[in-house]
Amino acid sequence: MIGFKTIEYDQGKKQLTILDQTRLPEEEVYITLRTAEEVYQAVKNMNLRGAPLIGVAAAYGVVLAAHSGDQKAVDSACDLIRSARPTAVNLSWAIERMRKRLGQAQDMYSELLDEAITIEREDKEACKNIGALGEALIKENAKIMVHCNAGALATSGIGTALGIIYTAQENGKNVSVYSSETRPLLQGARLTSWELTKNGIQTYTICDNMVATFMPEIDIVFVGADRIAGNGDVANKIGTRGLAIIARYYGKPFYAAAPISTFDFTLASGKEIPIEERDENEIRKFHRRSVVASSAKVCNPAFDVTPSELVTGIVTERCILKPPYKLNIEKLK
Amino acid sequence: MIGFKTIEYDQGKKQLTILDQTRLPEEEVYITLRTAEEVYQAVKNMNLRGAPLIGVAAAYGVVLAAHSGDQKAVDSACDLIRSARPTAVNLSWAIERMRKRLGQAQDMYSELLDEAITIEREDKEACKNIGALGEALIKENAKIMVHCNAGALATSGIGTALGIIYTAQENGKNVSVYSSETRPLLQGARLTSWELTKNGIQTYTICDNMVATFMPEIDIVFVGADRIAGNGDVANKIGTRGLAIIARYYGKPFYAAAPISTFDFTLASGKEIPIEERDENEIRKFHRRSVVASSAKVCNPAFDVTPSELVTGIVTERCILKPPYKLNIEKLK
Repeated sequence: MIGFKTIEYDQGKKQLTILDQTRLPEEEVYITLRTAEEVYQAVKNMNLRGAPLIGVAAAYGVVLAAHSGDQKAVDSACDLIRSARPTAVNLSWAIERMRKRLGQAQDMYSELLDEAITIEREDKEACKNIGALGEALIKENAKIMVHCNAGALATSGIGTALGIIYTAQENGKNVSVYSSETRPLLQGARLTSWELTKNGIQTYTICDNMVATFMPEIDIVFVGADRIAGNGDVANKIGTRGLAIIARYYGKPFYAAAPISTFDFTLASGKEIPIEERDENEIRKFHRRSVVASSAKVCNPAFDVTPSELVTGIVTERCILKPPYKLNIEKLK
Repeated sequence: MIGFKTIEYDQGKKQLTILDQTRLPEEEVYITLRTAEEVYQAVKNMNLRGAPLIGVAAAYGVVLAAHSGDQKAVDSACDLIRSARPTAVNLSWAIERMRKRLGQAQDMYSELLDEAITIEREDKEACKNIGALGEALIKENAKIMVHCNAGALATSGIGTALGIIYTAQENGKNVSVYSSETRPLLQGARLTSWELTKNGIQTYTICDNMVATFMPEIDIVFVGADRIAGNGDVANKIGTRGLAIIARYYGKPFYAAAPISTFDFTLASGKEIPIEERDENEIRKFHRRSVVASSAKVCNPAFDVTPSELVTGIVTERCILKPPYKLNIEKLK
C-alpha cells in the first residue's frame, strides 16, 4: 500500500524532495528543497503539512543548514523553521532533538543527518504500531468517519488515523470511510479522498456541515492530533471539536491517533495550546472570486481543542490511552 | 433598512424582476423573468432561494402562466414550479393557494394576480411580526450565531431569523452576528454577510466547522426553516442539526424562525420530510478545479432535520412556540 513518498532526503545530492500537497488531487508533483529557508516556506505555505510530517521535514531542514558547516547558520535555521507554524508540537519537538544532538556533535553534518534519519524511521515505526494497535477497534464492514488528513500524507509512514484504517483493510475488514472536506483548505476533500481511494478504500467526501447527518450510521470516528496536553485535551484541525460533540450526542466512539511526539507534557490543559490564526483570504476568496462581503470580518483559526471528556481514547504507538488521561499520560513520559 | 428588493412584479410589463443571488456579493444584478418556465429555472438554479421567497416567486410564476388565458397552461405551470425543489413546503403551499383560487376564479389573470399579491403582502407582514416577537429574546450587545441565509434575501420582507436581528438592532441592542459560510453554495458567506453589513450589523464570517470554537461566546442561535413537521422537527439548510447539537452541548438557546406557511401539518415527524440531494459537482469542483479525487464518491444532501428536542423555541408571526410542540403546533392550524 501507499503509492507515493511524502518526503525523501537524497544524501548524495543533499536535497529534500517532497510531494507538493497544494497541487493534489489534480496533480502529483514533487518539489525539491535545498535550503532551510525553503523548508520553512514549504511548511508555512503547507506544501507539506501534518504534525508528524512537519516534524520530519524540520529535522531535514536543519540538516540542509548543516551543509554550510557553520553552527550559527544551523542555530538560525532551527529558530526559523520552528517559527513556521505554532500549533503542532512535533515541529518544536523535532527541532529540540536536533539542537540536543548538535550540542554533542563531533561531526555536525553526519550526526544531524543521523538524527533526522532516526526521527524519520521512528515516525514510520510509530505509524505502523499505531495502525496495529488501533485496528483492533474496527469491526468488519465498519463505517468510519475522519476529518482533515491524518494519513500517509501527514507522516513519513502509513499515517496515524488513516494508518489504522489501512491496517484494518489489510486485515480484510472491508471498511468504508466518510471524510469531511475540511474548510478552508480542503485537506479532507483534496488529500484524504486521494490517498484513501488510491489505496482501494471506499470513500465518501462530505461537507463539514454534513457530519450530523451521517453520524447516526457511523461506527467509529478517528482523527489525528497536532498537540495533546497533559490532561488529554487534543488540539487538531478546526472542526474536530464539533465532530467530537456530534459523535458524543449520537453515542459514537471518538478516537485520536498520534505518536507520543505529539504530547506536550509541559501543558496542564488544552487551554494553553497556541492556536494558529491563518490569512483570512483562505476563506474570503474562492479561487480569486470574493465570496464574503468586503465589510464583513472573517475569522480563520486553523485548529481547535477538543476537551478530553469527549475523547474515548488516544491511540499511540505504545498503547491505547484511556481516561483518567492525566494519570495515564504521566506514565508515557 | 433593507436596501434591495428580492422580487418585484411589474403589472404593466407583466414580468417579474428578481435579484440574482448567485452573483452576490460581487455584483448586485437584477434579472427579469417572463414565463413560468423561467421562474422554475430560477428556483431550481437558486437565482433566488429561501423558503418564503420561493413561495412568493411560485405564486407570480403562476400569474405569468395566466397571461395566456389558457387554464391548462396554468395547471402545467403549477406542476412544473412545484417540482423545482422538494424540501421547502412553502413552494407547494403557495401553489396550492393559487390552485384553489384558480378553481373559483371568474377572471383568471386578475384573481391569480390578487392572490400572488396577497401572498407577498402576508409574507412581508409575517417577517415584520416574527421580527417584533423574536427580538424580545435578544439582550443588549448580544452575540448571535446564524446559519445559511434566513434574511431579507430569503423572503420578500425583512427576513425571518435576520428579521429578528434587524428589529433588535433598530431597537438599539447593538448586536453582532457570527455567520457560518454554509457549504457548498456559501449562502452564509455570500448572502448573509452581504445583507447584514449592508444594514450596518457587525458580522463575522466563519467556516461551518468553526461553530464549536465560537459557540462558548455566543448568546443565542437563530436559524430559518424550510419545513416544520407536526412534532416540531425542523428541516433547514444542511448544517443546522450539527449547529443545534453544538448549541445544546454549550447550553445555548437555539431558535428557528419561520412563518406558519412553513409548517407541514400533514407530517407527524421530520423523518417524513423529503431531503433534496443536489448535484455532487457543487462539492467536487471549486470554481472548475477538481478538489475531490475522482474515484471518491460525494454526498450532497442540501438539508437536514433538527429533532425538536434540540429546539428551544420556534418564532412564528403569531407566537413563539415552545414544547410540547405537538400540542402547540396543533393550535396553529
